[in-house]
Amino acid sequence: MSSKKLLVLNAGSSSLKFKLFGVEPFGASMTGMFDRIGDASNCVLKASAPSAEGKPKKWEIKIPAKDHVGAMENILSFLKENVSGTFAKEVVAVGHRVVHGLDISQPAILCENTVNKIREAAVLAPLHNPPGLQGIDAAQKVFPDVPQVAVFDTAFHATMPAHSYMYGLPYDLYEKHKIRRYGFHGTSHKYLLEQAAGMLGKPVSETNVITCHLGSGSSIAAIRGGKCVDTTMGMTPLEGLMMGTRSGDMDPAVVLHMQKTLNLSIKDTDTMLNKKSGLLGVTGNNDLRSVIENAQKGDQRSALGLAMFVYRVQKYIGAYTASLGGNVDAIVFSAGVGENSSIIRGLILESLKGMGLVMDSAANDATVGGKQGDISASNSRVRLLVIPTDEELSIAQQTLEVVQGKAAKSA
Amino acid sequence: MSSKKLLVLNAGSSSLKFKLFGVEPFGASMTGMFDRIGDASNCVLKASAPSAEGKPKKWEIKIPAKDHVGAMENILSFLKENVSGTFAKEVVAVGHRVVHGLDISQPAILCENTVNKIREAAVLAPLHNPPGLQGIDAAQKVFPDVPQVAVFDTAFHATMPAHSYMYGLPYDLYEKHKIRRYGFHGTSHKYLLEQAAGMLGKPVSETNVITCHLGSGSSIAAIRGGKCVDTTMGMTPLEGLMMGTRSGDMDPAVVLHMQKTLNLSIKDTDTMLNKKSGLLGVTGNNDLRSVIENAQKGDQRSALGLAMFVYRVQKYIGAYTASLGGNVDAIVFSAGVGENSSIIRGLILESLKGMGLVMDSAANDATVGGKQGDISASNSRVRLLVIPTDEELSIAQQTLEVVQGKAAKSA
Repeated sequence: MSSKKLLVLNAGSSSLKFKLFGVEPFGASMTGMFDRIGDASNCVLKASAPSAEGKPKKWEIKIPAKDHVGAMENILSFLKENVSGTFAKEVVAVGHRVVHGLDISQPAILCENTVNKIREAAVLAPLHNPPGLQGIDAAQKVFPDVPQVAVFDTAFHATMPAHSYMYGLPYDLYEKHKIRRYGFHGTSHKYLLEQAAGMLGKPVSETNVITCHLGSGSSIAAIRGGKCVDTTMGMTPLEGLMMGTRSGDMDPAVVLHMQKTLNLSIKDTDTMLNKKSGLLGVTGNNDLRSVIENAQKGDQRSALGLAMFVYRVQKYIGAYTASLGGNVDAIVFSAGVGENSSIIRGLILESLKGMGLVMDSAANDATVGGKQGDISASNSRVRLLVIPTDEELSIAQQTLEVVQGKAAKSA
Repeated sequence: MSSKKLLVLNAGSSSLKFKLFGVEPFGASMTGMFDRIGDASNCVLKASAPSAEGKPKKWEIKIPAKDHVGAMENILSFLKENVSGTFAKEVVAVGHRVVHGLDISQPAILCENTVNKIREAAVLAPLHNPPGLQGIDAAQKVFPDVPQVAVFDTAFHATMPAHSYMYGLPYDLYEKHKIRRYGFHGTSHKYLLEQAAGMLGKPVSETNVITCHLGSGSSIAAIRGGKCVDTTMGMTPLEGLMMGTRSGDMDPAVVLHMQKTLNLSIKDTDTMLNKKSGLLGVTGNNDLRSVIENAQKGDQRSALGLAMFVYRVQKYIGAYTASLGGNVDAIVFSAGVGENSSIIRGLILESLKGMGLVMDSAANDATVGGKQGDISASNSRVRLLVIPTDEELSIAQQTLEVVQGKAAKSA
């Protein structure tokens, strides 16, 4: 057992999440978050770590941090105090979650070139990439000698063929402005593919699956021979399924009609589609668990929102069955809703028996709360799998691969 | 054989198409069009009618008409001269194609209430309903004593369940502004359903089909038990498949990004998405036949546009297979491309064998040029049908049913 450590960072506009991994043996050891960065009186660092006694050890410390660099410095002090006095020397790599990496297909060492690409992609992800860059900047200042790696949400989808990623728009919008489908949640879909291949006993390169990442943000990917061939999210995370507060698919002309009829600015329209739509817009509640409860109590709009959510997942399972030419090894359910809601999985699968998707109800009911399992009936043509996703673990693995690969190359 | 006649009208912003039907026996007898209404020097009336000699009789007459009423008067004079001197007395009904009828589910006698509904719907179909109203006004002035019927492109889709027609938007946009999916080409999808039921030897009410109306405008409908349960076009005809000049589905956020990046007004954006996108935007050519030819000559963007068109049809066939719970009697191909391009049908079906869709290549190649036929191989789980659509015939039939129903009621 070495003392080598790996830090995974996920920076938001006023937050900095971190997860600490041991390298040998590989595994997570502490999770934390610096929240309300810049808000001196409410700035807080929270963390938790498993303890020998079983009950996790928890911290909640008020420390001001005026920016991401300040937050990073405080996180380092905290880790030195609570993990190891020589922490800074034990970190072998920092892995950063970066939302938009344009068409970069692999995790990348954070050299100037990569940082420029992330900056370039910020035009397409104005809410996500700039905080990501702040997190990177902070980590580079605090750990100047540690290799840093960017793992992109878009990377796994870089294998999509052009007929999947192109929109039916004037071609120069793609050439000059990079407008195309990129897809997100790629780290999760990649992780789910690898786990599914394991459960199916197949090499990843021969695995055909439809992975359903269903949470407050939701997306589905069609994966053929271990490579993503299509995914529901588009140039931004707005496209595809209906989500907690995001509309998902709709007639593009509706956007223009809303602007005209309601006299909305571009910014207002953006806010409406991303923050006030989806389940929240239809039912008044963005949390699918509450929507289910309210639907069960007889609330009609909740029942409608629930039916819409389910139907749109069904349509994409059908669409991606066609994308895979009908050769689907398994449908994978994951993330908050996909892992925990046997009701939603049941509703999705109930009416798809005619497509060869037959669920075992008892297995479905039993596979909740972070359990992994096969919920298909023995006569199901397609396997139905529940797999808890772990994006940080995947980022840590990918970061390590890049660093070790680099070490090997430079050796 | 009676001399009773029925006139079907389809009014555009500067055109008025007409088709004349005999009532007993029922059948089309003349087709014509008044074009460039309002453009005094180029205004032209064209018509053709089958003749005993086999070669159709054709007319092309330059007559000025300052508006739709003038055009209608000229059409009447033409029909009196070339069909019957007592034409006006022989017309038992006029059927109007109206694009948007909101949630009206049936053809409707053109009373004040119906006209008001069409006017109300014009907010959602600003390019289509106002000319439709001009056509109605013209016909009412020229045939004041003849019952007039509106047949709506949206009507067949009125049976869609809410989870299909609702968008994931704030609910009051539906309640206050009627923003929802309506669907179009309904007259065609209804006609295809009825023809398909006949070919399948099933009652319409037990027929489950996916009807693909593929032309310069394209849409697909999922029909369960003779009722439409979903369709690709939305609040406007922009949504769904990629078309000649329309984008079809895309990330709604792209609309906002285009407006910001290219500094486009709402109107410019509308023009770009409806007139400059789709096949034209991707390949430089809006005609699928030319795109196929250019792709065969090695033009890469044409090959891309072709692949995008085909892939999007495949995805909806898959999605609607899920909508129908896997119980699909037949896939129907129709309209300009669907009826005539065995290449496109072949490309669409080629990779869907794994979903039980197996084409007979010889039958596919032979079923072109307005032929009706079954192109499925004997081992195909789903029947694959080619059916030439006839919207005017369907409008005439529906108009007659309304008028005869009304006659029966008032008798």
